[in-house]
Amino acid sequence: MNIQEIIIKKRDKKELSEDEIYYFVDAYTRGEITDYHAAALMMAIYLNGMTKQETINLTLAMAKSGQILDLSDISNCIIDKHSTGGVGDKITLILVPIIASLGMYVAKMSGRGLGFTGGTADKLESIPGYETSLSLEEFKNNVKEIGISLATQTEDLAPADKKIYGLRDAIGCVDSIPLIASSIMSKKIASGADKIVLEVMVGSGAFMKTKEDALELCKQMQEIGLVAGKEIVCVLTNMNEPIGTSVGNFLEIIETTEALRGNISKDVEEVVCTLGAYAIKIAGLCDDIEANKIKIKEQIYNGKGLEKWRELIIRQNGNIEYIDNIDLMPKAKFEMQVISEKSGYVKELDARKIGEISAYLGAGRIQKEDIIDKNVGIVFNKKIGDYVEKGEKLATIYANDEEKGLNAVKHIKEVYKYADEEVGIPQMILDVIM
Amino acid sequence: MNIQEIIIKKRDKKELSEDEIYYFVDAYTRGEITDYHAAALMMAIYLNGMTKQETINLTLAMAKSGQILDLSDISNCIIDKHSTGGVGDKITLILVPIIASLGMYVAKMSGRGLGFTGGTADKLESIPGYETSLSLEEFKNNVKEIGISLATQTEDLAPADKKIYGLRDAIGCVDSIPLIASSIMSKKIASGADKIVLEVMVGSGAFMKTKEDALELCKQMQEIGLVAGKEIVCVLTNMNEPIGTSVGNFLEIIETTEALRGNISKDVEEVVCTLGAYAIKIAGLCDDIEANKIKIKEQIYNGKGLEKWRELIIRQNGNIEYIDNIDLMPKAKFEMQVISEKSGYVKELDARKIGEISAYLGAGRIQKEDIIDKNVGIVFNKKIGDYVEKGEKLATIYANDEEKGLNAVKHIKEVYKYADEEVGIPQMILDVIM
Repeated sequence: MNIQEIIIKKRDKKELSEDEIYYFVDAYTRGEITDYHAAALMMAIYLNGMTKQETINLTLAMAKSGQILDLSDISNCIIDKHSTGGVGDKITLILVPIIASLGMYVAKMSGRGLGFTGGTADKLESIPGYETSLSLEEFKNNVKEIGISLATQTEDLAPADKKIYGLRDAIGCVDSIPLIASSIMSKKIASGADKIVLEVMVGSGAFMKTKEDALELCKQMQEIGLVAGKEIVCVLTNMNEPIGTSVGNFLEIIETTEALRGNISKDVEEVVCTLGAYAIKIAGLCDDIEANKIKIKEQIYNGKGLEKWRELIIRQNGNIEYIDNIDLMPKAKFEMQVISEKSGYVKELDARKIGEISAYLGAGRIQKEDIIDKNVGIVFNKKIGDYVEKGEKLATIYANDEEKGLNAVKHIKEVYKYADEEVGIPQMILDVIM
Repeated sequence: MNIQEIIIKKRDKKELSEDEIYYFVDAYTRGEITDYHAAALMMAIYLNGMTKQETINLTLAMAKSGQILDLSDISNCIIDKHSTGGVGDKITLILVPIIASLGMYVAKMSGRGLGFTGGTADKLESIPGYETSLSLEEFKNNVKEIGISLATQTEDLAPADKKIYGLRDAIGCVDSIPLIASSIMSKKIASGADKIVLEVMVGSGAFMKTKEDALELCKQMQEIGLVAGKEIVCVLTNMNEPIGTSVGNFLEIIETTEALRGNISKDVEEVVCTLGAYAIKIAGLCDDIEANKIKIKEQIYNGKGLEKWRELIIRQNGNIEYIDNIDLMPKAKFEMQVISEKSGYVKELDARKIGEISAYLGAGRIQKEDIIDKNVGIVFNKKIGDYVEKGEKLATIYANDEEKGLNAVKHIKEVYKYADEEVGIPQMILDVIM
């Protein structure tokens, strides 16, 4: 087999065989195919697409490029939760302790943030001491013993995806639906869960800008799940404004902890309860979604979710004092208020732009090598639908660089768009596909 | 400027600016842009095309990436001849000494063969001693003093094209019309000639498979020529069967020398006379094409072309004894006859397949690093239109490996296709565009 012939075939819109796809994935992972051959192939796939069979084969080849975690000795119902990424997205952090607190097993490996979106692993690492790099054995033991583990993807897990994703990111080939579907699903297959709750975010602050694209992504991921024997529920959520009240690493850890104490914003609660309700359903425990939502809500208000959250942090060596007493955490040097210069109803609060401002403050990575600033970010007082009086506080900027902070104040002010007439509260759940 | 943004722009079918194209060409040539970024961009260009302005900018940026040869102190009418490449294509070798013998200046840099086509430089190097690697000064001096030089492209000349072409070849992005046009024209602009005779071959044994594609290539090259102040005539020639009677390096040197002695096949004579007639016309010497053809023909039969051919070889250190007495050249170890098993009129003799068989014998390169076998190849006794009696000789195979020779005999036999009815002689000149 010859990589040049494979490139030419895809260039000419022909379907690659199973053998050709496995050859490419294996040889590229081993370093026997150059980056420039792989780059040409990725661009040809980006522009010419992949068939359903090609997408399935690419996913399975990437999943099998490393170790496939076997969790079947723990349970035949291990739950994973994945989000396609958004701005201020702390849903995973709030939801998975709640699911585990109900006695379900949760095995979740997370990625790091890049560009305008944050990463769950980065947020967890803002808790002093919290270890995200676990060995597969440690990861598995945590699931077995406390019902939950939240770690980063190990080197052994789908290494082909890691290498291919890095290349795609460098050459502008990330936002291709079959490539996103195969990347997500290869990791999910390798990390051993049986039931997967997939949160597909839609809007300016997400990779999927339209509901149509999001539905196509769900369809492709479910097709792969069917072949791989994984049960998947996809929940489409709104990502036109940031979710919840904060964007930033430790700021979102604070919001998570507060949410699990019952101080939860309405949008976050709706998404957490819906995703949780479907998790209970695919675990085969109860099909009544409304009843399940109530069950999830109970775990927020009775403190059981918080208890599991604390247990997880302690288990992974996080210093629980910073969670129990948030004031212990050193504050950002500058705390700046964003004051409204107009009155009106907030009608727009572009999540993408906010993600970029947050990354500019240091909460995200612009380059892969960038080091995250844990305590910078933005906390919102006003969101879409809220009425604002001129002179009222819109948000607070936390910055470690004065100039960046002042620029962020200016830019956040510009992101707020107003209407004279009342604006409804945005619908958070756009669709559920099982 | 940022290469990723340039890739994404082209990926999304937007037009690249002059600055973006120059940035890419310069930074890639200097090694500041990686091969994988360039590979992604080339595939995006291959699949999404280039506008006229992009093609012109890419050509000029590549031409300016190295030295631009100034021959204006010799004459303001320096002729270059270029062929897009075919099988058995010795037209350049025969034509340029004839043009020089008429007092015109010829400055011609040639490439090496790759895949199924041969390269003029490889053929010249099969003459013992002949030096193709000249410095720019030596190249220029030859043009000045004997009116002709035939050498390889120097390292200084359009280095960006050399690097980009090498990459395109590796990743299956060669046969894109704007990329071919810009590659050819960048070298032509850098090598200093004012008037360019471009032979565009069309058919199975050429890069352009259809007349439509060939016309598009001519159009794009002429658009570039107009901007660069180069006068160009494009002659479309038939490349469905090999041109002339031989395919192979020294075998074509023999055919060239014989042609210049007056032993010239009809197809070669027609192409040489037509191209030569237009060379005289664009040199501004005479507009009467039919009269010019006669002038070219005279130089074949009066020995003046041969004299200039000998002068060129001696000047570039070729051992003229091998030209004057062809039997001095060591023969290939095996000489095998291909005998017809059928009677009929030859109706097909696929040039592409013959080029591949010739490369398999060792006359061409399959990989860039392959070493050419100078004395192997194929000599044809029967071509399209000829009547063949069962048992008659079709061709002779020259091989240095017995097994390869026997395989070549078998394959050449299969390439001959017959008709019961008379088949016309193929038309050689398909079109002329000035």
